[in-house]
Amino acid sequence: MTITENTTSPNVDNGVNVEALLGAREALSAAPAAAQFTFAATNEWVAGTHSRTTVDKFFGLGAEQAHRQPYSVDTDHPEIFAAADNGPTPPEMMLIGLAGCLTAGVASVAQNRGVQLRSVKATVEGNMDVSGILGIDPEVRNGYGAITVRYEIDADASRDELEAVVAQSQKRSAVYDVITNPTNVVVEVA
Amino acid sequence: MTITENTTSPNVDNGVNVEALLGAREALSAAPAAAQFTFAATNEWVAGTHSRTTVDKFFGLGAEQAHRQPYSVDTDHPEIFAAADNGPTPPEMMLIGLAGCLTAGVASVAQNRGVQLRSVKATVEGNMDVSGILGIDPEVRNGYGAITVRYEIDADASRDELEAVVAQSQKRSAVYDVITNPTNVVVEVA
Repeated sequence: MTITENTTSPNVDNGVNVEALLGAREALSAAPAAAQFTFAATNEWVAGTHSRTTVDKFFGLGAEQAHRQPYSVDTDHPEIFAAADNGPTPPEMMLIGLAGCLTAGVASVAQNRGVQLRSVKATVEGNMDVSGILGIDPEVRNGYGAITVRYEIDADASRDELEAVVAQSQKRSAVYDVITNPTNVVVEVA
Repeated sequence: MTITENTTSPNVDNGVNVEALLGAREALSAAPAAAQFTFAATNEWVAGTHSRTTVDKFFGLGAEQAHRQPYSVDTDHPEIFAAADNGPTPPEMMLIGLAGCLTAGVASVAQNRGVQLRSVKATVEGNMDVSGILGIDPEVRNGYGAITVRYEIDADASRDELEAVVAQSQKRSAVYDVITNPTNVVVEVA
């Protein structure tokens, strides 16, 4: 998620309600406890490396919130790892989340800056040396060595303006932050 | 993805082909170039903060690989952020990927250690102070402050054995590594 600043342009419609976001910023500035969110997901093993994760309720604005409907996503390992390939791999979900976050930000920032978007496409690539997860080389990390995101944007704006829109999206992206900075994760057995 | 070690138990079937994984480890130890993978995703803006990301082809074992079929996932912002809620939020995708990765690892490690699983459930929670993404407080990070994953496992094993299975999954998890350690991300406009 990325939410931005400045004024709005009535003639531009990217489908983002910037006025509401600016209102939320003002309201939460005065009520910081309401800005404490907890997102949640429940995961169930299906078989092999295949599992299903569902998001439904979350906490924010001081109360329990819910999606319009629960959303479930299956993940699995690919056939070349002798698995059944019933969905994206979990590392691919990182790329999906990153792209979804940055593109939501691009639409929001563009709206706020009066830039009408016609199309936005991004290609995301993540390099991984699987010598890490396979336990071949303890010096190789398990995760991605590097990730690149490349945008192609058709919009009423100069290349410089579009680069600035993408940079601002990146600056306020929750997922970009999660991937580029360390986050503490506790894993426990109930 | 998490892939593990040791011997297999013929009477235990969690649906994970551990022999193939051990064979892959042996083969890739002798051919490190084949261990260089590139995962990829393409993202297309739909409207507002709603976009659709698809995974299909990837590179590994020295050649282009493909999923059995393309998989697309929609992401969006929730209604309380004045958006249409057409899918999980991008930060929730981080929780989905983390749970999917750790559970695939639990099934694989359990298989390898001769632990028959009956059910595996995980609850994942991520705390986020949205004062970061809203630009209210520059001292607050955009991403999660902390994430917890809590497993409930029904299996033919002691609590200590199950805790060790979960710990080994965590040790070899690509997504756990991506979230807990920094990864370089380059974002550019084509």
